[in-house]
Amino acid sequence: MQDNKPNTNWKHRLHEIIYEADTNAGKIFDIILLILIIASIILVMLESVKSFDRQHHQFLLAAEWVITIFFSIEYIARIISVKKPKRYIFSFYGIIDLLSTIPLYLSYFIAGSQVLIAVRAFRLMRVFRILKLARYIGESNQLLNALKASRRKISVFLFGMLIMSVIFGTLMYLIESDESGFTSIPRSIYWCIVTLTTVGYGDIAPATTLGQLLATVIMILGYGIIAVPTGIVSAEYASAKKNIDTNTQACPHCLSEHHKDNAKHCYNCGNLLNE
Amino acid sequence: MQDNKPNTNWKHRLHEIIYEADTNAGKIFDIILLILIIASIILVMLESVKSFDRQHHQFLLAAEWVITIFFSIEYIARIISVKKPKRYIFSFYGIIDLLSTIPLYLSYFIAGSQVLIAVRAFRLMRVFRILKLARYIGESNQLLNALKASRRKISVFLFGMLIMSVIFGTLMYLIESDESGFTSIPRSIYWCIVTLTTVGYGDIAPATTLGQLLATVIMILGYGIIAVPTGIVSAEYASAKKNIDTNTQACPHCLSEHHKDNAKHCYNCGNLLNE
Amino acid sequence: MQDNKPNTNWKHRLHEIIYEADTNAGKIFDIILLILIIASIILVMLESVKSFDRQHHQFLLAAEWVITIFFSIEYIARIISVKKPKRYIFSFYGIIDLLSTIPLYLSYFIAGSQVLIAVRAFRLMRVFRILKLARYIGESNQLLNALKASRRKISVFLFGMLIMSVIFGTLMYLIESDESGFTSIPRSIYWCIVTLTTVGYGDIAPATTLGQLLATVIMILGYGIIAVPTGIVSAEYASAKKNIDTNTQACPHCLSEHHKDNAKHCYNCGNLLNE
Amino acid sequence: MQDNKPNTNWKHRLHEIIYEADTNAGKIFDIILLILIIASIILVMLESVKSFDRQHHQFLLAAEWVITIFFSIEYIARIISVKKPKRYIFSFYGIIDLLSTIPLYLSYFIAGSQVLIAVRAFRLMRVFRILKLARYIGESNQLLNALKASRRKISVFLFGMLIMSVIFGTLMYLIESDESGFTSIPRSIYWCIVTLTTVGYGDIAPATTLGQLLATVIMILGYGIIAVPTGIVSAEYASAKKNIDTNTQACPHCLSEHHKDNAKHCYNCGNLLNE
Repeated sequence: MQDNKPNTNWKHRLHEIIYEADTNAGKIFDIILLILIIASIILVMLESVKSFDRQHHQFLLAAEWVITIFFSIEYIARIISVKKPKRYIFSFYGIIDLLSTIPLYLSYFIAGSQVLIAVRAFRLMRVFRILKLARYIGESNQLLNALKASRRKISVFLFGMLIMSVIFGTLMYLIESDESGFTSIPRSIYWCIVTLTTVGYGDIAPATTLGQLLATVIMILGYGIIAVPTGIVSAEYASAKKNIDTNTQACPHCLSEHHKDNAKHCYNCGNLLNE
Repeated sequence: MQDNKPNTNWKHRLHEIIYEADTNAGKIFDIILLILIIASIILVMLESVKSFDRQHHQFLLAAEWVITIFFSIEYIARIISVKKPKRYIFSFYGIIDLLSTIPLYLSYFIAGSQVLIAVRAFRLMRVFRILKLARYIGESNQLLNALKASRRKISVFLFGMLIMSVIFGTLMYLIESDESGFTSIPRSIYWCIVTLTTVGYGDIAPATTLGQLLATVIMILGYGIIAVPTGIVSAEYASAKKNIDTNTQACPHCLSEHHKDNAKHCYNCGNLLNE
Repeated sequence: MQDNKPNTNWKHRLHEIIYEADTNAGKIFDIILLILIIASIILVMLESVKSFDRQHHQFLLAAEWVITIFFSIEYIARIISVKKPKRYIFSFYGIIDLLSTIPLYLSYFIAGSQVLIAVRAFRLMRVFRILKLARYIGESNQLLNALKASRRKISVFLFGMLIMSVIFGTLMYLIESDESGFTSIPRSIYWCIVTLTTVGYGDIAPATTLGQLLATVIMILGYGIIAVPTGIVSAEYASAKKNIDTNTQACPHCLSEHHKDNAKHCYNCGNLLNE
Repeated sequence: MQDNKPNTNWKHRLHEIIYEADTNAGKIFDIILLILIIASIILVMLESVKSFDRQHHQFLLAAEWVITIFFSIEYIARIISVKKPKRYIFSFYGIIDLLSTIPLYLSYFIAGSQVLIAVRAFRLMRVFRILKLARYIGESNQLLNALKASRRKISVFLFGMLIMSVIFGTLMYLIESDESGFTSIPRSIYWCIVTLTTVGYGDIAPATTLGQLLATVIMILGYGIIAVPTGIVSAEYASAKKNIDTNTQACPHCLSEHHKDNAKHCYNCGNLLNE
């Protein structure tokens, strides 16, 4: 994305600072933004702690205004400096940037004593600022590719787990009484997933002998089938890695790569690899 | 299963719509059936939520009748259109289709105010309609094959876990008193499986120092041996994948195998693979 | 262990029935023994359920006597028929057989109303009869070998987990108060292992913010390091499998096996494998 | 580190005993030190059990003094015998050695009835003596290398989990009320990590239908993504193992590599590997 031709245009300079990181100004801008995003997330968290909010309400509000103003300026600067503003505004990060800026403004427009709690909810959306952090992680793509390669098989696996949860959840609803917490089928299915994934809160737990027997079967199933997604990702990741690791030799004739480790002749042109 | 010869017979047409999915009518039929199955499962779930059932009882009953009538028609149509009706009726899906259709009818024949709850249980069997969904999943076979290949080793593993549960469960019953929840050996074994599979409800938990020490050993065992099924499935899946992905072609000159998928020349003797 | 020479000696016949399974009588004996072992374990379990024991005490006592007498006869027959009785008596299975036979007799010799409960503990030892079942599983060796190969690395891993538990357990004891359940360091270590292994009973749970922060670190550590034993067993199992699966060809000259998949010459004698 | 030239200097002899383990005196010193470290850790643990401390307070104090005096002598001896004392004092093990020695002395200097509990905290630092044990484990390096190789990918994975926890924690805070335990965002994030890692204490658990639905999604995510670190470590460990285990010899005639470990002849050209 680096532009080598000389420019005097201030828009172009702004674009370089905001969107690129190969100038000193650009690097400093990125680091300040990163710190502000993390600071704003911590502020939202502290605000939700009632005892802290009561004592330091004025400080939290002031800090919130500072961050909101900075984010507003940044948002406007991004729109101005980009060549196709509409494309940015409706892109994933454009929407995230807007959503993480507006909550404080919204709390004044949609004011009123009784909707105050709902407005707080709007303000809490600022937590989505955390998604901005994803921009700074490039390596995550490698992991996402590994997950994408095994996506279909994991979907089938999850679908199978869902069917099992519905069937076992219904059976548990029939076996257990309301006292144990199995008050409806959706709740029983919720319990079944809690058990299958080996989370096990214990807020709902079988009390009858038959219920405990079935619970035992579900637990062992959950314990056993955890091997399936692990095995899939493991094998996919290993095979992806293997394709990278093999023979780094290039054919001296046709320049094709990725030969077998013990290849003598090029698999593409048939000439000897080592002459 | 596709029949290419022209047919005017309505039975044959019906068969094509119901059992096959390569005509437009067949595809629409399948999608409607899929939606109705999911709708019927959601209805059963909502019915089990007492507060919802009290408010919308009339709606739930009406919707239930609509689905039951559709399923009845479908069941009769399947029997009529198939060449060997008996074979369908006693097949796995034939029984599932029947069981998911009859509960509402049964609730009228075996009526009486006191057996109403038991009849509700019959109606809940309709949840097994979800098994019909399996028909639409072809890829699940691949996963099932991976599980089948490691079936014997997983059985041995589960058997070992069962023996461990019986021994540790009995020891915990001797160590812990009734107050902690270890009231009988089966209950202690239930606790032991809850712990070994790392579910950990906490409805039963050791209170004595010796009991907590033994519980610690069981937990670490459970945590350690989860590696065994995962390792087995992982290795089986990886070896299955390797066998599927490779080129099965043999060089016509030197007979060497396992060429790269896009190989033109033999990597061993250099001759063309396809002449 | 099969003896081919003709024999008329009844001791030899008895030995064949009890210790071997290649005659019809031997097979039937093994199956009856297997059923009785499982039955005796179920009886011990039912006896521990107070409500069941109160109602069917006479039946349980009678059934217990039948099994004890059969086990006594079996134990004596094993001693008579074997050539070196002492070696059998002091072998692992000899001791298990004795321990699973004597409890009922002991309850008469060491009688007295106040020691009855302790004697019941002796009787519960009969659960160890389940270990006899291991005799019937030959395939378990394969799994045990896989575990043995990675034994040292898993020991180091478990030792590291223990050190982590001691350090984190002590820190949590300092951070959390008695009210949350962290009453002593051993109890805090117990909690730490419950958390690291992702069991999570919830009988002890951090209540302070700092405690919850540290708990979060421990959980993520536990979740992350579960990958280590799984990875080890996975890799060991895969490499063991690979050694078995390779080239089944035997050298026509020196009969050595396990050649590389693409070998032309025998790695042992140097002759061509295919002539 | 072994010094072969003859020496009469007592400092050198002391250095050999304390820092090296190839003389008899050195071995005995190491074993005594190991036993004392474990004993001191057990003492600290027992001291924290109130009922035990009340009964055996005098014994615990005496044993504590014996160990502290031995550790003091050891610490001074280490400083005297080493050539560069400053380097030892400020090394990792130097600081650990000091911290595990001073608590008992400190409890007399910073005395006073009201700060006694805080001083106890100092004394508990002796638990860090356990870190000294790490010295005796050489094999742990292998495991640490496996973890180091996959360190970056696991960091990205943990960072992704943290983002998910913040987003889902905030959503749960909005959905659930204070009664279920979701009193602040940090607490909701704590709950979210408890769920994602499948620990599941149950001290905080969703009570509303929407909350339980979202919890279900979080659980399945946590169950699914556990496959990622396992797959990474598994693949890294397997590739590390493969590189270590193979024969590194090359055929002197045709230069082919990766011979079987017990190969005498080259599998490619048939000549002897060692001539």
